[in-house]
Order: sequence, then C-alpha cells, then structure tokens
Amino acid sequence: MSKKNTEIPTSKLKIIPLGGLEQIGMNITAFEYEDSIIVVDCGLAFPQDDMLGIDLVIPDVTYLKDNYDKLKGFVITHGHEDHIGSISYILSQVPAPVYATRLTMGLIEHKLEEYDKEHASQGAKLMDTVRRKTVTFGQSINLGDFRVEFIRTNHSIVDAAALAIYSPVGCVVHTGDFKVDYTPVYGDAIDLQRFAEIGKKGVLALLCDSTNAERPGFTPSEKTLAPIFDNIFEENKHTRIFVATFASNVDRVRQIINTAYKFGRKVAVEGRSMVNIIDTAQRLECIEIPENTLVTLDEMKEIPADRQVIITTGSQGESMAALSRMADGTHRKITIGGGDTVIFSSHPIPGNEKPVTRIINQLLQKGVNVVFQDVHVSGHACQEEIKLIYSLVQPKFSVPVHGEYKHLMAQAAIARELGFSKDRIKILSSGDILELSPESAEINGKVPVGGILVDGSGVGDVGNVVLRDRQRLAQDGIIIVCMCISSEGMLVAGPDIVSRGFVYIKESEDLLSEASEVVRNTVEEKLDEGSDWNSIKTAVRDSLGDFVWKNLKRKPMILPIIEEA
Amino acid sequence: MSKKNTEIPTSKLKIIPLGGLEQIGMNITAFEYEDSIIVVDCGLAFPQDDMLGIDLVIPDVTYLKDNYDKLKGFVITHGHEDHIGSISYILSQVPAPVYATRLTMGLIEHKLEEYDKEHASQGAKLMDTVRRKTVTFGQSINLGDFRVEFIRTNHSIVDAAALAIYSPVGCVVHTGDFKVDYTPVYGDAIDLQRFAEIGKKGVLALLCDSTNAERPGFTPSEKTLAPIFDNIFEENKHTRIFVATFASNVDRVRQIINTAYKFGRKVAVEGRSMVNIIDTAQRLECIEIPENTLVTLDEMKEIPADRQVIITTGSQGESMAALSRMADGTHRKITIGGGDTVIFSSHPIPGNEKPVTRIINQLLQKGVNVVFQDVHVSGHACQEEIKLIYSLVQPKFSVPVHGEYKHLMAQAAIARELGFSKDRIKILSSGDILELSPESAEINGKVPVGGILVDGSGVGDVGNVVLRDRQRLAQDGIIIVCMCISSEGMLVAGPDIVSRGFVYIKESEDLLSEASEVVRNTVEEKLDEGSDWNSIKTAVRDSLGDFVWKNLKRKPMILPIIEEA
Repeated sequence: MSKKNTEIPTSKLKIIPLGGLEQIGMNITAFEYEDSIIVVDCGLAFPQDDMLGIDLVIPDVTYLKDNYDKLKGFVITHGHEDHIGSISYILSQVPAPVYATRLTMGLIEHKLEEYDKEHASQGAKLMDTVRRKTVTFGQSINLGDFRVEFIRTNHSIVDAAALAIYSPVGCVVHTGDFKVDYTPVYGDAIDLQRFAEIGKKGVLALLCDSTNAERPGFTPSEKTLAPIFDNIFEENKHTRIFVATFASNVDRVRQIINTAYKFGRKVAVEGRSMVNIIDTAQRLECIEIPENTLVTLDEMKEIPADRQVIITTGSQGESMAALSRMADGTHRKITIGGGDTVIFSSHPIPGNEKPVTRIINQLLQKGVNVVFQDVHVSGHACQEEIKLIYSLVQPKFSVPVHGEYKHLMAQAAIARELGFSKDRIKILSSGDILELSPESAEINGKVPVGGILVDGSGVGDVGNVVLRDRQRLAQDGIIIVCMCISSEGMLVAGPDIVSRGFVYIKESEDLLSEASEVVRNTVEEKLDEGSDWNSIKTAVRDSLGDFVWKNLKRKPMILPIIEEA
Repeated sequence: MSKKNTEIPTSKLKIIPLGGLEQIGMNITAFEYEDSIIVVDCGLAFPQDDMLGIDLVIPDVTYLKDNYDKLKGFVITHGHEDHIGSISYILSQVPAPVYATRLTMGLIEHKLEEYDKEHASQGAKLMDTVRRKTVTFGQSINLGDFRVEFIRTNHSIVDAAALAIYSPVGCVVHTGDFKVDYTPVYGDAIDLQRFAEIGKKGVLALLCDSTNAERPGFTPSEKTLAPIFDNIFEENKHTRIFVATFASNVDRVRQIINTAYKFGRKVAVEGRSMVNIIDTAQRLECIEIPENTLVTLDEMKEIPADRQVIITTGSQGESMAALSRMADGTHRKITIGGGDTVIFSSHPIPGNEKPVTRIINQLLQKGVNVVFQDVHVSGHACQEEIKLIYSLVQPKFSVPVHGEYKHLMAQAAIARELGFSKDRIKILSSGDILELSPESAEINGKVPVGGILVDGSGVGDVGNVVLRDRQRLAQDGIIIVCMCISSEGMLVAGPDIVSRGFVYIKESEDLLSEASEVVRNTVEEKLDEGSDWNSIKTAVRDSLGDFVWKNLKRKPMILPIIEEA
C-alpha cells in the first residue's frame, strides 16, 4: 500500500460520478487519464414523486460530449436498469464501444433493438453501429491508457462483475453491486482470490457498493431459499401457486422452476420484462430449464390448478405490472381468488411499501393465501462482506458508492473502523472530480451534471417550469378565462370560464356563475379604462384568484386567453 | 359465555363501521339498538396518493342523517386524528353530545374552536352549541338504550380509553387503540382487572385493535426509552439536540423534557401541532414540566448550544413540518448543521419511508449527527397483548378492527389459535351491518358509506371526475385550443394554442407551430363542411391528439373552447 513507484506518472487519474448521489440510481462514472476516458455503467433513475408524468431520468452527459475525442468506451458491471437503463440514449449522443459480460450484453442488446425500433423514423441504428464485445471473467480490455479486468461477483442478477481498472496512476477496484455468496445456487462464487491477488499488488482506491452498509452481518446465500420454497410448495400442495419476484433475478426464477419441477408442476412466466429476461437468459444459456416444464399461459389452461406455477412481475406493487392487474381483477388471462397461493419472493424497495401492501390486501380480500415474509435474500453486501472486501483489496483510498448519503456514510464508518483516517475516505457528489495521484486523493472542481427527464418519447423537453405547472394543475386544477377582443378594444365574445380538475361543475353552479360575474366586471372595467391586454390578464388573475381563495381556500391555475378578432 | 339470559331481547344490536376497512384511518362506528344510536370515534383519513390536491377525507354520514332522531351521542376513545379528526365536520351535520376523557376532550375543543373561526361567516358556533362531557375512567354514561363505561388503557397518547358498551343484547368491549404497558412512565397502567371483571360477567363481542397483530411478542414499555435518551444525551453532551417525535405523544415529550432537565438543558417545542398539544396538555395538567425548563425559541437564542433541546414535529417527513424546513434550510428561526444532533424518536408510518429518508440524508449532508434507530416504541398491542385481552374478556364473538385487511386477518388468525371457530370471527367492511343477538352474529345488509373529499374549505365538491382530470393534468399537462366563430360560421379569431405542463415552449417551438397548423387545417375543413361546434371540437381533439401521440407518445388533456362572436 505504501510502496513507492519509481516511475511517477505526470498526470492525475480523475474519477467523476456523472450520476451518483444527487441522481440516485443513475450509476455512471467517468474515469479519465490524460487523453483517455472510460465510463463505468450507464444507468437511469426512476422519477421522484414530484416529477409528475415523467417516465424516467437519464444522465446529462455534456461532459462526455465536450470530451468526446477522449472517450474510449463503456464498461458495464451488470444488467440492472440503474446500470444499463440509459445506454441507448447515451450511445445515441456519444457513440463508443461497449464491454460487458454475457447476460449483461444480452440485456443491453435488447435495449438497443427496442431503441432502434422506436426511433426508426429518426434513422436510429445503434445495433448496426455500436461496437460491442462480450467479455468473460478474468479477461482484460485495453482502452487507451486504461486496462479493465472483469472479476466475477455475486449479485441478484447473473453475470455481475467487479472491475479492476488499471491506470498509470494505479489500480482502482470498482465492486459494482455485489454480495459474497459462498454457495450460489448456480454458477461460481465471487472470485475472492482475485480480489486478494490484486490487493496484494497494491490498489489505489476501492469504489465499493454501500446499499446494505447499515446492516450488520452477512447477506444470506441465495441457496437458503431452496428449502423455504420447498416448504411453501409442500404446504400448498392443493392450490395453484403464483410467485412474484424481480424479473432480472434469473437464479431466483431458476430455483422456483426447480422446486416446481420437483413437485411435478408446470411453469409459465408472465409480465413483459419477465418474459424478455427469461428469453434472453435461455438464449444465452444463463438458465437451464428442465424439459417440458416451461409452458405458455394458454397451454396452462389445460393443466390442473395444483400442477401450475406462474412466475410474475409486479412484486414491487407496480401499478401496470401483471400481479397488480391480477389483484384488481383486470388481467386479461388470469383470474385469481380463493384456492390460490401468491408468494412474494421480494422485499419492497424503500418507497414501494404502500403499493405492495395495497396488493397484498387486495389479494387477501379475494381469499388468496398470501406468503410475503422471508422468501427473499438481498443481492447486496452487508457490513461483514464489505469488511471482507476491504481486507482483501486493502486500498489506499476508500470511495463509498451506490446508495443514499446515509448508506455512503455507513460505509465510511466501516472504513473508519478498519483504520482509514478521514482523509483516506472520499464521498463524492455528482459531478465532483476526484483527482488521484499514487499518494493523494483530492476533490478538485466539478463538471456539469444533472438529470434529463424523459416523458413519452420526448427527452429533455420537460423541465422545472413544466413540472411546476403540472404540480399546480394536480393540486387544484385550472380555470381558463377566454375572451375575444376586437382591434378597437371592444369585447367581441366572452369572457367565458372553463375549468378542469377544479370543482364538480354541476354542484358548484352558483359559485361558477358568481365567478363569471367577477371576471366580466373586471374585464369591462379594464376595457373602459382602455387597458392593454397584459393588464387585463393580470386583473383577471387577481380578481378571480381572490374570489376562489376567499370561497374555497384553493389556488387553481388561472389562465386568461385573449384572442384578437 | 354460554349463560342464557332469562329475558330475551326482541331486537338485535347493530354494529356498523361507517369508516373502517375501505376508508382506512377513518374510525367511526355506529352502535344501534332500536331507537338508540351511539357513535364510537369520529376520525378522518389522509388522502391516498391518487387523490391529488385533497387535504383530507371525512366519512359520509348519510346514515346518521337519515336516522338523526335516534342519535344519542359520540363517545371518543382517544385524541388521535384518525379518531377525532372529522368531528367538527360531522357535528356540523349531525349535532349531538360528545363524551371523552380529559386530553381527548381538550383536543376536540381545539378543533371546534378552529372550525368556528374558519366558518364564522357561515355562523358556525359548535363551541356554543355542542354539549360536551369530560368523562373519568370507570365512569359510565347512559345514552338511550346504551350504557358506556370508559376503561383506562395505554397508548401513544395520554388518556386513551377502551369502552364497555352495555346494551339489552349484551356487552360489547371496544379496545380503542391500545397497548399493555405495565410500567407507563406517567399515569397508570391499563386497567386489566376491569377487563377481567367485565369478561367474567359475559361479553358478547370484542372489537380489538389489529394494528400490530402481525407482530409476535409484546410491545415494549414506554419506560424502556428513558435510559436510551439518557445515553444519547450523554454521548452528545457538546451539541445542540433536536428530537423529532409525534406531537400527540405527550408522555414521550415528557420523557425528553425529563432527560433534558437532568442534563441541565432548556427545552423549546417547535411546530404548530406540537405547540398546540403541549399547551393543551399543560392546561389540563396532563404533563408536568419542571419549572424554568420550557422556553420559547426566541429565549433559546440566549442559551448556549449545548444547553438546548428542541422538540419538533416532522418525524414523518411531512414536507411542511418544522423539521423538514430545518433540513432544507428554509426554517425562519433555526439553522441546523454540523455540531447538531437530531434524534428521530419515531418510526416511519408505512408509506412515509421515502420522505423520512430524504430528510435524514439532507441532515447528514449538512453534517448533522442523526440518530434514527431504536428510539421509539409502538403504541399498539402485539400478538401476546392481543391474546391477553382476549383471555381476560373471553367474548363470544371476535370483531378485529383498526388496520388494513392483512392486520384484521392476522388478528383473526390469533382468535383461531385461541379456539374461536370461523363463525365466531367477523371481519366487517365499511357499511356492513353486523347484527348481534345474545347467541348469534350475522352480517345483514349495508348502509351507504364513503369518503368525502375535503380540498381547502370545500367539502365534497371534488370527486372522481375532478380527480381523474387532475391525474391527467398531472401526467401530461393541458393544451387549450381557443377560437371565436361568428354566428354565420366564420372564424373570427384563432384557433390559438396555449399549453401548460406540456412541454418547454421555447425548446418546442417547431412542434407547437406544426400543431397549430394541424389544428387550423382541421378547423377550416370542418367549417367548410358546415359542421356544428361539437364536431369541430371532436375533430380538434382527434387530430391534435394523434399529432401529439405520434410525435411525443404523450396524451395531454386537449380542451377546445369555441366562443361565439
């Protein structure tokens, strides 16, 4: 760790989170050394509660555009949305080669295909133009001044990788999202030996997953779920069984299928993302399914209820997902009720507690047997696993990543426990430039960052002004005051009042006709004074606003429109 | 339990939840025997996520209006909003006497005063007209055919009561919200002997709190928090200390003040509801505060930081509460930062996890030391306490109340464990009429129930149509198409397009001018055809809707307005 290099690099290594803290969920981090930039991950964020109508948020990559000549490529740790979700949008702005492991690449390619289809009219051809290389574990990729090695880890998706990023300044290890699973159900355990080996040679900085840094102990192995599924299936021998889980958790799906097979049941998967991921995983041989086990929903119709298992999306209470539609009785093909068992193989992600509970209550009211406790293990490292990785890698500097501020602080506390002095721990905000030399780490300056809002197929055409308007419209609705004025300043038509989202029009007739009266008086007074249109509009806004506030204590948006005849 | 009465009552006792399951949070239950109706509690519900702009939800009491001549009074178990929140609204519709214990009545009176002030122009005089009687524990009230006895319990608010409701058909015990605290910090423990005594005489039905029915074991005593507060104060001797907790938890506030006193600190309370409840509690002698300990925020300015404690609202992340304003730096009097400690003496209520976490992160980023784990105990009974109450009361019928469907089901499971057959357990939906004879309990029929939405000072003038409009406006905004047509069918002005909450107008100029073109063509074509106004409006909605969907995959509300010149 304190070895001195004989050749001292003249430049510094820069690490710049382009998503990160203020844009939680958008994992995208630039590594820069002289004329080389590589980007780790390319995630999206889901909209916050006040981003009304927004579908998703993607990172502002102005910095990559401004330094496009340096950009050598994207290296992706795993296939979750917060790590690959914005890749099509970003590649269409700053095309560059993409490097990822097997399933990750499969999911990325699916995104590129979809993007090309949706943007065919604009001539999108990402699948044809973006260079892609599927990497195996242990393999290294040379990208300008960087060499990047992919190291096997465990996570709640197959083929997750940590990265060792070698630069002239030193090696940086990025864990990606990981847990330590000594006994994964399929595939190999995390390559701890390699972490140790790299650590032994000297690591400048460790960027480590903080998601579970508040939780003591170890995250249980995925394997611990097998007997739990067996028990639940045994206890519910005579019912149809539904299992809701994360679409991307291929190993979980495989465990469920195995248990189903053991109990002589057929399995169907339901929900768009579930079908897509299982298809991709099958095609890439990331999942082995016993023959004649997987059937379609239509084929399921011929099979007795107690021989059926349906694995479905919607474990987070997403209102459009399959489970939600089953729970509220709007699913086209599946009617759920008494005699069915629904297993939630998931925990609600913070913020989703309420919708999940709503679905559980709906199912219970339909007489469904709902199993929703302890049929899940996390995919992220708890405190003892984080300590293990630190002890193997023994970095000079600690850079907690992936999580809210409180999670990063919790990892910082772990690092302190392990003997890291405060100046060896760096917590980065979005856009911060962390400059590393072999001996020092300092935050110097900032690059422009931010979230670009995607609404429908529009990217960036909705911003704060539009959102504020939507919030106001959502709160109290809108009253439109229309009138037509001649060029001589005579009222030709109106003023008419139309409202939406304000009050029941029928039950508030008196109020609305009083409001019309107020507006009419205001307009006539202003016209008599010979006021200009702007003064008329302001006067209407004021008088009508006062009237509504006095009567209802509400502040609808008031929009006067004057047309010239 | 199986004793037979010699006099068999000819009528049945009806229990009708007017809030209840579908209106979670709105606790209001009618008890009816022949010509007598009494109502237990009078709560409100907070709006669900899709009730945009709604401030609160109150119960529809059509049933009480229709049977007003029978209404003998309201008996209230305790002073939480979900039990007293709608009382002013309901009393203004169906005035009747109100019975409650000391602090509960104090909080109710505060509500009546506020209502009278806000509705002075409509001549509201609830404080002058509503008969109120403050009841002590052990006291009974005669109300028509009913006698109601108030029994002391423990809960997260002072003066909580269970009710024994004696009717000609038998005695029904309603626990209210309760826990069993053998060692409450102040006041007495729950009157278990009285529960036993009443049980011994025979209880027809038990309506028992289900909130924590999923949780095994016992809820810890409030007293267990004292050493925890002491420790935290000891560890943070040199910082200013803030404690966020529920305003109504008077005993908690008292514990905090005691610890503050022990450590020689002064205390200020901040947040409107906190100030109100502590004032009321002091006036009614529900809280004893050591002399010279409570100071105002202004007086606090003269006191050194390490001698200050500020107890504040906002522990649930409420965006308008004091703590939230401190966290985002908009509080008028308090600037919080490094060197401060904030203790969350609360758990997030389900659904509030995200806003609470947001505030914790904001505080951490300001360098505040945040303590947010294990400084709280629940106010509701866990499984062992529920079993205890069942064992003391030994009712013939079990009626789980207070909670979501899954909580009621969890209590039903406990009752099953205790030997209750299925037909002795009754889970009621809102409006269900549970008819009880000494030997039977059956759900027969339904009364009209529902939630009335309160928005500003408007009650019931916002309903599903308005909410759907608000949801649509929130999602994609509105485009208004205005035009003025002469009586001869000539276009006098417009069509003009105005949008709000749709797109950035500047960045979407091309799109908007194309849209104008589409609209103009549609209108001119329709006018040429001699179409009527409705066909013109429909055509505008269709063509502009298609245009926007094709270009942006969005569906804003499109509102054509035609004025006649």
